[in-house]
Amino acid sequence: MKILLVGVGGVGESIAVMSARHAWCEKLVLADYNQARAEEVQAKLKDPERFPVEWVDAGKQELIEALARKHGVNLIMNACDPVFNMPIFNAAYEVGCHYMDMAMSLSEPHETDPYHTPGIKLGDLQFEQAEKWEKKGLLALVGLGVEPGMADIFARYAQDHLFDEIEEIGVRDGANLEVRGYEFAPNFSIWTTIEECLNPPIIWEQGKGWFTTPPFSEPETFEFPDGIGKVECVNVEHEEVLLVPRWVKTKRVTFKYGLGDQFIGVLKTIKMLGLDNKEPIKVKGVNVAPRDVVAACLPDPAHLGDCMFGKTCAGTWVKGVKDGKPRQVYLYQVADNEECMQKFGVQAVVAQTGFNPVIGFELIEKGIWKKAGVYGPEAFDPLPFMDRMAEFGFPYGIKEM
Amino acid sequence: MKILLVGVGGVGESIAVMSARHAWCEKLVLADYNQARAEEVQAKLKDPERFPVEWVDAGKQELIEALARKHGVNLIMNACDPVFNMPIFNAAYEVGCHYMDMAMSLSEPHETDPYHTPGIKLGDLQFEQAEKWEKKGLLALVGLGVEPGMADIFARYAQDHLFDEIEEIGVRDGANLEVRGYEFAPNFSIWTTIEECLNPPIIWEQGKGWFTTPPFSEPETFEFPDGIGKVECVNVEHEEVLLVPRWVKTKRVTFKYGLGDQFIGVLKTIKMLGLDNKEPIKVKGVNVAPRDVVAACLPDPAHLGDCMFGKTCAGTWVKGVKDGKPRQVYLYQVADNEECMQKFGVQAVVAQTGFNPVIGFELIEKGIWKKAGVYGPEAFDPLPFMDRMAEFGFPYGIKEM
Repeated sequence: MKILLVGVGGVGESIAVMSARHAWCEKLVLADYNQARAEEVQAKLKDPERFPVEWVDAGKQELIEALARKHGVNLIMNACDPVFNMPIFNAAYEVGCHYMDMAMSLSEPHETDPYHTPGIKLGDLQFEQAEKWEKKGLLALVGLGVEPGMADIFARYAQDHLFDEIEEIGVRDGANLEVRGYEFAPNFSIWTTIEECLNPPIIWEQGKGWFTTPPFSEPETFEFPDGIGKVECVNVEHEEVLLVPRWVKTKRVTFKYGLGDQFIGVLKTIKMLGLDNKEPIKVKGVNVAPRDVVAACLPDPAHLGDCMFGKTCAGTWVKGVKDGKPRQVYLYQVADNEECMQKFGVQAVVAQTGFNPVIGFELIEKGIWKKAGVYGPEAFDPLPFMDRMAEFGFPYGIKEM
Repeated sequence: MKILLVGVGGVGESIAVMSARHAWCEKLVLADYNQARAEEVQAKLKDPERFPVEWVDAGKQELIEALARKHGVNLIMNACDPVFNMPIFNAAYEVGCHYMDMAMSLSEPHETDPYHTPGIKLGDLQFEQAEKWEKKGLLALVGLGVEPGMADIFARYAQDHLFDEIEEIGVRDGANLEVRGYEFAPNFSIWTTIEECLNPPIIWEQGKGWFTTPPFSEPETFEFPDGIGKVECVNVEHEEVLLVPRWVKTKRVTFKYGLGDQFIGVLKTIKMLGLDNKEPIKVKGVNVAPRDVVAACLPDPAHLGDCMFGKTCAGTWVKGVKDGKPRQVYLYQVADNEECMQKFGVQAVVAQTGFNPVIGFELIEKGIWKKAGVYGPEAFDPLPFMDRMAEFGFPYGIKEM
């Protein structure tokens, strides 16, 4: 399998590192706007022929198409900020290869009623092209990271194997990660965190469909396993809410993120100052997007692995009925940072994200997951994926609640 | 009296507007880098012969000297950002005329111990030239705005007329100004506010001399008069702490700024995220200083006068002994924004700053304040200054505490 990896940030690096271990990975092109960064990752991989470096501007569809053709790839893996989704998605379609991402095309809030009614939803721009992709026999597998991704696969598994009837599905994400030596250092892209936390959170309910709320709604203390313990979680806009109801039968779907008080305060200030703005403004003669400046001021989460300690947990809580009795389970994966650093040389959050598309590559390459069109991970059989998790270093757990 | 005003921003405008009312103001040259701005102020004054406009780069000493000679001025008034203090100060010395400013030459933090030990202090570069100025028979009156300026004069007045012995002097500044229509809109340059609030605050104590602390130290709730009420104040680097102990006998001097909880939280977040950085960083191919981006995201305070409501209070709290009994007083001036807009066409913060140098001009012109060397406002008799405050539209109050 030949893959064009667009975006060699933290998650991109972990995808490359994990793919390198598999013989089916014939070639993986490391393409980034920051060529020095791509070369840094290439140097770690010690196989420059199998992992060539290319400069690319992910906003320019024609450049991505040219690289895909030059290297004759079977799949374009998008590991960029989702603002670049459409040029990368469209490039794969034009070139005629498969496409995979870990976050879907961006939403636009409703113009007059943003905190009740969705505007353009996450992934709408991709799903509206499903028929075109199907006709061309190509697969766009969208949202195959950890969340969305593994969390969606867990939801499908719950339906297929654990419940007779599902009432509610709630993805719950929490961590006790600590970055030593920094006063403030998010362990994930701040650009994306701002996007998902300040956009109106989305909820799905049977009969009502998708609806939105104000940011940070429905706070809930969720108890995470493996010593992480109780974390304050709030509703956040996330792909699972858009994906799960399309393929899993339930009455309600939410996503809650364990942000904690300090982080919620920082995000509220960023919004108040207008620093969440992703459109360029004029500053002393140059044009720059304030949100990009915020991201540039903070340490790159890709380089924080050595100062991070603790665990991060991603998972899916499911409430329903089995054999006539009420049942609640939490299906989860806990990644320990020190372990990820030792095993893969990348920190826990990006490692826990990166292993999912790599399993996806294998399932597509071996013809185990095979469809044409635009699909979320819960559209496929969850077993071959979950069977591989332990072998890839990320075993899942199931907790009865 | 002929004056060269270098800098015709908000405060420069208020100085010109207020000087225009006095016959002793024979000529006041409006010199700015932004000539259109100087012309805008000239048009309001309706007397272009008495208020000629000149273009100047305040960083170029020789240009300032040339203008001072061309117009044969008696005094150069510096109403620029203090980053330009030294070329303007040196130009006055070279030309042989008096000099006045409202903020002193900038500090540099101590290289290894910034939060305990001062490095270069505010005004150091000016005071080290005092002997030269004295020998040439010229007066440099530094720090004659409202704070520093009026606040220093209040300290001297307390010593001369209200106390037998002074234990502590604390300048306290607070406001209830509200900018309607904005979620967050500072009423003063955010760039300068970040500079003064994030620099290590300076404190003076008898026996210990000047020392610094971490930002936002010694939080204190101070009750301001005239309906402003209680405001959370914290230590900030300010000139009064450098000036007052030189001429007023006391045991401790501080400056605390009533920033309020919300603003303190915002500044802490700005610092934590590294957005206070005034050096350019690389952001997606352009170079930009994060602090400039923060400023560009917020509305320009120079154009907010019409949406501002409320009052601002500047003053000096003094604690000591009079006739064997403990005494505490707060000497203050409260400016109401709507009143300032009506009377002078400028907002409260710049009006309350601008009237002080104008009283200074009159006292120098009439020979009432007369010295050679580099002096702060508390080096002079406070009575003739304070007697004029009401007449100039800014009466003071004294509150026993």
